[in-house]
Amino acid sequence: MSSDDDKLSGEDRLIAHYFQPIATHPGALGLSDDAAFIKPPPGCDLVLKTDAIIGGVHFFADDAAQSVARKALRVNLSDLAAKGAKPLGFLLSLALPKEIGDDWLSGFAEGLRADAVLYGCPLFGGDTDRTPGPVTISIAMVGSVPEGTMVRRAGAQAGDAVFVSGSIGDAALGLALRHSLAKSPTRPSDTSIAAEACVRTASAAMDVSDGLVGDFAKLCRASQVGAEIAVARVPLSDAAQAAIAADPSMLESALTGGDDFEIVCTVPSAKAASFRAAALAAKVAVSEIGVIKAGEGARFLGVNGQPLAFKRASFSHF
Amino acid sequence: MSSDDDKLSGEDRLIAHYFQPIATHPGALGLSDDAAFIKPPPGCDLVLKTDAIIGGVHFFADDAAQSVARKALRVNLSDLAAKGAKPLGFLLSLALPKEIGDDWLSGFAEGLRADAVLYGCPLFGGDTDRTPGPVTISIAMVGSVPEGTMVRRAGAQAGDAVFVSGSIGDAALGLALRHSLAKSPTRPSDTSIAAEACVRTASAAMDVSDGLVGDFAKLCRASQVGAEIAVARVPLSDAAQAAIAADPSMLESALTGGDDFEIVCTVPSAKAASFRAAALAAKVAVSEIGVIKAGEGARFLGVNGQPLAFKRASFSHF
Repeated sequence: MSSDDDKLSGEDRLIAHYFQPIATHPGALGLSDDAAFIKPPPGCDLVLKTDAIIGGVHFFADDAAQSVARKALRVNLSDLAAKGAKPLGFLLSLALPKEIGDDWLSGFAEGLRADAVLYGCPLFGGDTDRTPGPVTISIAMVGSVPEGTMVRRAGAQAGDAVFVSGSIGDAALGLALRHSLAKSPTRPSDTSIAAEACVRTASAAMDVSDGLVGDFAKLCRASQVGAEIAVARVPLSDAAQAAIAADPSMLESALTGGDDFEIVCTVPSAKAASFRAAALAAKVAVSEIGVIKAGEGARFLGVNGQPLAFKRASFSHF
Repeated sequence: MSSDDDKLSGEDRLIAHYFQPIATHPGALGLSDDAAFIKPPPGCDLVLKTDAIIGGVHFFADDAAQSVARKALRVNLSDLAAKGAKPLGFLLSLALPKEIGDDWLSGFAEGLRADAVLYGCPLFGGDTDRTPGPVTISIAMVGSVPEGTMVRRAGAQAGDAVFVSGSIGDAALGLALRHSLAKSPTRPSDTSIAAEACVRTASAAMDVSDGLVGDFAKLCRASQVGAEIAVARVPLSDAAQAAIAADPSMLESALTGGDDFEIVCTVPSAKAASFRAAALAAKVAVSEIGVIKAGEGARFLGVNGQPLAFKRASFSHF
């Protein structure tokens, strides 16, 4: 090969310019190799999670690239937090249509970098491809928990209190009231990710990504228990309360619409005080919304104690 | 929620039916939770790699779903093998257009299952989404090596012999001569993945995914060395030899076209015998094609010793 040919490809330049600055882990070798290596923390299990977001499906084509990047990371970070895991770093698989230019990539990389620093999760490695389809961002996140302590979906027991972090429904209502809410509809909150510490006292937990009603039903099924949830105690933002006051049918959207990325968890009564103290220390707002019951079926009760019925429990792609 | 509503979503059914049988690792919890946990092997580093394949870009829309699945895994497995790493398992992120039905999914899952069993790499977890674009399959692979022993791109030294596994160019020529070659153009060979054992004696290694000329130039750049490669010693299949005899311009396609997923590595002369013995034991065909030189630039020499020039060194998406 002549030396004229011996130059970096476009893909190599893209990686060097935008992604190397996020690959701060020594085992990522500055993205100059074909794989990364990490030394697992002693006495820990690794926790592994992958989640993708797709343009036109999980975000709007005109969403800011920084917000898209942060959503791509945070949908995974909130899963790790719900399992009581600390993030170690992530792999990025990025498929880009040809319309995507340097402006978008620069904003995207800046969004990744900001959250990589904030949550201590550097880029371990990645893959970039052209696609004839929309922007597709797949993240594989690696975290750690002390051996044997990953918080499961299964584990809730009759009598446990049910807690949820942050507020529910803003993202779903934001799809209707786009840009009118203070909380960005495009990404999970800092607080849900910070919930990792208090989740460690939970008997079961998961993140709320496909709607509180449907996701909590999954937790109950996995734990082989039922539950009673007081809908009036489900935390709603001021904006969501106003939207529901104006149109009561919005309540169902808030409870089933998804994209909350908050944490729902169950806490044995003996641990409720330490759970609340850990949440306070981590500055995570938590609300007690109900109780686990023997049997099956998670019932959502209205103000008069009557069970509410929902047209569909949660968002599903299929 | 009424008990009538309390049923599995379409996504849950898809996972239960097609993907649970591949999730044989106990930490995958039968895909019933939001994340998996694994206990890292003692005394080992973890090796992490992600690579995606996209319909219409990396495979043909009418390729058999089983082959597509195996390609998606093997492009990652050959990277792990090139680093001397043993696979532990993988995360799958799958974006499906609405045309994809049960026939395709069933074949795809069967392809994944076959290679997961063959290479001891179960499914740790995954994510499925609808996409308005083509089928997009992103795999994140986790492997392990004894601590500190991941084989790098950087590490080749002047005097090291250059080896390549299997044969080069079949995939690139197969794009022209589609279906006329015995080796499927849609996936890396078993042998490159089996090369993991012999690669451990290499001073530097990488897989050949974007063309031998361009990829080997990257290895030389990372190692800050040059090389002389005898093109006549580059292993070619009978079909590739026949194609090149009929049209000599095909030689350049074979050397630069990519999708080989073979391993190129450099071996110090003191270790050449043990490298060959390990390759023989693993039933991996290896060919010595040249030697590392001080300086820079990997020169590919023709039969009369003259350096060949190539129009483009390797495949690049950007």
